Amino acid sequence: MIRVGILGYGNLAKGVESAIQQNPDMELVAVFSRRDPKTLTVKDENAKVCNISELLDWKDKIDVLVLGGGSATDLPEQTPKYAEYFNVVDSFDTHARIPEHFANVDASAKKGGKVGIISIGWDPGMFSLLRMVSDAVLPEGKHYTFWGKGVSQGHSDAIRRIKGVKDARQYTIPVDETVNKVRKGEKEDFTARQMHTRECFVVAEDGADKAYIEEQIKTMPNYFADYDTTVHFISEEELKRDHSGLPHGGFVIRSGVTGWEKENKHIIEYNLKLDSNPEFTGSVLVAYARAAYRLSKEGKTGAMSIFDIAPKYLSAKSDEELRSHLL
Amino acid sequence: MIRVGILGYGNLAKGVESAIQQNPDMELVAVFSRRDPKTLTVKDENAKVCNISELLDWKDKIDVLVLGGGSATDLPEQTPKYAEYFNVVDSFDTHARIPEHFANVDASAKKGGKVGIISIGWDPGMFSLLRMVSDAVLPEGKHYTFWGKGVSQGHSDAIRRIKGVKDARQYTIPVDETVNKVRKGEKEDFTARQMHTRECFVVAEDGADKAYIEEQIKTMPNYFADYDTTVHFISEEELKRDHSGLPHGGFVIRSGVTGWEKENKHIIEYNLKLDSNPEFTGSVLVAYARAAYRLSKEGKTGAMSIFDIAPKYLSAKSDEELRSHLL
Repeated sequence: MIRVGILGYGNLAKGVESAIQQNPDMELVAVFSRRDPKTLTVKDENAKVCNISELLDWKDKIDVLVLGGGSATDLPEQTPKYAEYFNVVDSFDTHARIPEHFANVDASAKKGGKVGIISIGWDPGMFSLLRMVSDAVLPEGKHYTFWGKGVSQGHSDAIRRIKGVKDARQYTIPVDETVNKVRKGEKEDFTARQMHTRECFVVAEDGADKAYIEEQIKTMPNYFADYDTTVHFISEEELKRDHSGLPHGGFVIRSGVTGWEKENKHIIEYNLKLDSNPEFTGSVLVAYARAAYRLSKEGKTGAMSIFDIAPKYLSAKSDEELRSHLL
Repeated sequence: MIRVGILGYGNLAKGVESAIQQNPDMELVAVFSRRDPKTLTVKDENAKVCNISELLDWKDKIDVLVLGGGSATDLPEQTPKYAEYFNVVDSFDTHARIPEHFANVDASAKKGGKVGIISIGWDPGMFSLLRMVSDAVLPEGKHYTFWGKGVSQGHSDAIRRIKGVKDARQYTIPVDETVNKVRKGEKEDFTARQMHTRECFVVAEDGADKAYIEEQIKTMPNYFADYDTTVHFISEEELKRDHSGLPHGGFVIRSGVTGWEKENKHIIEYNLKLDSNPEFTGSVLVAYARAAYRLSKEGKTGAMSIFDIAPKYLSAKSDEELRSHLL
């Protein structure tokens, strides 16, 4: 049994906890949180609940630590810190800071003789894998990443920070017309606005200025200003009833050409439709937790991304079984 | 520069030749054929044309040998034979015989200290990768593979062997109704007939018995008897005009569930639309030829499948570049 620990107990950590149940070669041994363990109950009755301050005591009782924290402040600090003591897997998704994060985790994991796998999930993660492999297979081409339709937690949070907003949910939606062009092999450069629209469902506080809120959303730099954004004001009940899930998905398309005259077009599309973003992301993290454990057993150390790991390490099945049934 | 040799000069080998042009770190040094080299001209003017009998003389002048032969008789003999002397990549696609082929290539490659990568292309190949990774990420689920719409060369050949047939082209077509069910997450078991139809364009010889031909096709075991098959008789000119390409494609769908009550559905789809089946397959072989070369440089030996190879080995880009731009 691979003994897994989880740091954090938010949506993603709960997705990891649930995914571990689906993998008979793994067990969740402990969940670590900043909260007082007495105030936290986890679903898995066999797992201990501990304060983060006890984490290093578990050094020899955990084979892989999955980090459930966020990329803004948790992971840049936690992954390098704990990679010295544990094989770790995180979902670090701040693209611009990946090289720096990789270097930090690498130094620490090498120091401790551990494996640190970063930026696992679906984007970065499965989408990265598809972008990279498709880029290698069709070197003359272009790739496009569309997200949605799905809930963006970052954008929902950004709306919640506006004065007068009680709660909000933001959906990212690919623009059909552009998707159709890309699927036909047109290789234009599209603007942010041409690729996605943003739809917001907002619960305003009593007496709040709705026109102000709408204006604040639509002009918010980075998040909304570059997109066609629709804002709907709804009641708290409607938000709960119609928008409580965390579905997401999207697709990566590689459009390339081959042939002496570049006369043949090829379209590779990888498409995800996910009822639960955190549970799917958690499932990917758990498969890579298995890889971290196995690579560590083989004596590997240091930071790795999804590009560095042979697919067989993800599976509970034997090499022979994989070749017989899935090749 | 990675020095590549190609054994064979059929459609697939020509696809490999064309793909090498798109990869600036690779050069085609020689094509080996059973034919008299004087009767064979290849497109790449820098490549030598040699008889297969000279192949072993190139032992130190070729970094990777790509095998362009067929799975029925060429590859079971050639891949193990040459894996002792060269790093090799093949597209062996007789699923039932993969374990045996792997073992043969492994013994020979280990003896010679070489790397032998088998069963590369899109199925087996890219589709295998997607089936395997998706199976690991969503262990509770089912996968479906649909082929087409595209030309099946095996089925076209089978028709050509019928008495009275001058030429033929067979298209494999997924059944829309079944595809839609699978995309919605229904996890039925479907029969061959429910998954694909077969459409045949046949040029009959003058005076041939068309009813006989049609009957022979539709009742042919394994190839057609289990499918709804349509037969169209057309002229040689029409075949040439409308059916001379070798387009193909298809998709792998993994339909899985997560959550404590298995309440969340997830659909992963990997979809290929290929104008030229041999050029795309050739492009995949070339990316794995790069991997064979690099893995051999690192001292690895023996047989490998797509499951054993970390994605980074496929790309001409550096690890840093991959992490910065594609992760």
